[in-house]
Amino acid sequence: MLELEPSRIEVGTPVGALDTPCLVVDLDRMERNLRDWQADIDRYKTRLRPHIKTHKVPEIALQQEKLGAVGIACAKVTEAEPFVAAGCRDVVIAYPVVGRAKWERLARLAREAKMTVNVDSPAAVKGISQVASEGRVQIGVQIEVDSGFHRCGFAYTDVDGIETFARLIKSLPGIELEGITTHRGVFFDGAASMTTEEAGLEEGRLMVELAEKLRARGVPIKQVTAGGTLTGRYVAQVPGITEVRAGTYVFFDSMQVGYGTTTEDNLALTILTTVVSHQAPDRATVDGGSKTFSGDRGVVGANSAKSGPELARAVGRDVLLERISEEHGMVRVGAGENLQVGEKVAFYPFHVCTCVNLSDELIGVRGGKVEKVWRISARGKRS
Amino acid sequence: MLELEPSRIEVGTPVGALDTPCLVVDLDRMERNLRDWQADIDRYKTRLRPHIKTHKVPEIALQQEKLGAVGIACAKVTEAEPFVAAGCRDVVIAYPVVGRAKWERLARLAREAKMTVNVDSPAAVKGISQVASEGRVQIGVQIEVDSGFHRCGFAYTDVDGIETFARLIKSLPGIELEGITTHRGVFFDGAASMTTEEAGLEEGRLMVELAEKLRARGVPIKQVTAGGTLTGRYVAQVPGITEVRAGTYVFFDSMQVGYGTTTEDNLALTILTTVVSHQAPDRATVDGGSKTFSGDRGVVGANSAKSGPELARAVGRDVLLERISEEHGMVRVGAGENLQVGEKVAFYPFHVCTCVNLSDELIGVRGGKVEKVWRISARGKRS
Repeated sequence: MLELEPSRIEVGTPVGALDTPCLVVDLDRMERNLRDWQADIDRYKTRLRPHIKTHKVPEIALQQEKLGAVGIACAKVTEAEPFVAAGCRDVVIAYPVVGRAKWERLARLAREAKMTVNVDSPAAVKGISQVASEGRVQIGVQIEVDSGFHRCGFAYTDVDGIETFARLIKSLPGIELEGITTHRGVFFDGAASMTTEEAGLEEGRLMVELAEKLRARGVPIKQVTAGGTLTGRYVAQVPGITEVRAGTYVFFDSMQVGYGTTTEDNLALTILTTVVSHQAPDRATVDGGSKTFSGDRGVVGANSAKSGPELARAVGRDVLLERISEEHGMVRVGAGENLQVGEKVAFYPFHVCTCVNLSDELIGVRGGKVEKVWRISARGKRS
Repeated sequence: MLELEPSRIEVGTPVGALDTPCLVVDLDRMERNLRDWQADIDRYKTRLRPHIKTHKVPEIALQQEKLGAVGIACAKVTEAEPFVAAGCRDVVIAYPVVGRAKWERLARLAREAKMTVNVDSPAAVKGISQVASEGRVQIGVQIEVDSGFHRCGFAYTDVDGIETFARLIKSLPGIELEGITTHRGVFFDGAASMTTEEAGLEEGRLMVELAEKLRARGVPIKQVTAGGTLTGRYVAQVPGITEVRAGTYVFFDSMQVGYGTTTEDNLALTILTTVVSHQAPDRATVDGGSKTFSGDRGVVGANSAKSGPELARAVGRDVLLERISEEHGMVRVGAGENLQVGEKVAFYPFHVCTCVNLSDELIGVRGGKVEKVWRISARGKRS
């Protein structure tokens, strides 16, 4: 009878000896990214709240908090749980939490940590108010504003609608109105003709102006939050913005390089693969496909992010990932390359968050050797 | 201190009460699909070997074997492990297994089960031969043939190359040449102008002709295997084909409906979501995004499968999933629909295999109630 043994990765293993495909984190780069972003946002006297969707690892969130982050943001209640269990005490669920099972879990988390959630419907605020009252906890709410992504939230021009909704929130027990929030990045009509700086400054300005209009009507807006790694550094510069959220800056990815948010020497996560087939001089196949690289180009269906034709680019090699099926990555091999079956090739992922969600562990390396293996605790936590 | 409690899904729970997003399997439809496909392939006196990549659940594989399947196919060594542990005794790894760590695990599996792997390089057959000899096991190999997908394998026209490679295999201890294998589906140049029947018959014919040429040169080819759910029923009809592989037929998906392989009333897996935001009459957002629906259109990068503009279609509702980010599914709501925040909406996925790989469990229902909850044991097993 076969006993199932999980693969064990020993500390000290050279990167080249790792089984593939796997996700390798350059710890020096990651730590520098965390310090640099925190310092940048600190400079504008704005708070930074990292979105943990990129790494999904509580230990990394605790590092971010130690560097000055005010807490964490995440998208789902079950995603928040391993972070609260690990000691995070200020958690924003930047997502409209809807459904009795989720509200009950949220109230349970609110016994341990300051919990704040996005809201944009009467059904949600009534449900959250009820579980908060029943559980004798206080839950913060932020009104979600649609600044152009058309994903969730009141249109930023709908000041009347937001005011009415804010008054409903004020009338309900157990919940407290914290402020307004948005996420837009570069995913809105007209983004293609703007720099990320222009997009970020506008995103911040729209929100601050909306906050002023609401305050003029007597609606107390304490927090005005926006951002993301693409625009967050610029959003943070707008006076009146109290907090910026960003996730990808921990590792960055090729999408961010494409937008000029960072440069290749800050890319902290690579995907290590093995060449498994090489039947023509100009093409080969590696052992990572869509179950590893995801194939995600930012937003699927519309307004996808800028990129070259390739799905991923090899680190320091003229090798481009062009097509993927679930377990196969078909690469174009440059004329000057000499690739061998069995050779390992590392790639910079296009959209790192979706790759992390497909993986069970992150392998932290320094000086070419494994220093840390993190279980990706929040992988697949989407309810 | 928060104790992490996994969500428990009780047998008997009504589908409408399930927390979302989740994957719901209609057990009646699934069991009918398994019976019907097995009966179809049996009719042509060809063996059926289900590819477990679609369900990734050992208990379902054992059902398939009970109905007459000769064993299972999978893509990776770690993916095979839970199936061998559960009792599968005839396993094909339909993938070029490359790398010392993988070969060692393969040899370990070969102590428990008949293991056969795809090969297309001298490096791989030498490595496998070595671990097989060291471990005193026998490992079967199938020469992978490229019939147009350009993913792995010798070109089907390269009879000389295949003959030379076959003679290398014959010269090595511990491994045995089983035959030739290919996977093409509809992912090849020229597929757009053919029906799946024409594509399948051609796929089978190419392989049988190649086998005859090799036999004429004295290369013993016992197994001639090909197929997939898109073409397998036709491949099976070609005299000389010994075995057909197929995965998706267990659940089918919208991609298969688009190709006419099946009809909507056989779709056995749906994705249940909750409406979390509904800010305009014609659009709303559900709580499943790319972490649930994947966004995969078959093969990313080229030759993607036929489909409408939507990423997924709601079951019995005029609601289409148009855009997805990680946790948000933006839907187009038909004029006659009346959708409410908090309401649950089920969708047929476009490519079901990639959705299963993003999930931790499959919820089997019958008569609207949960009958079985399967852990997706091989989720994320890609090394």
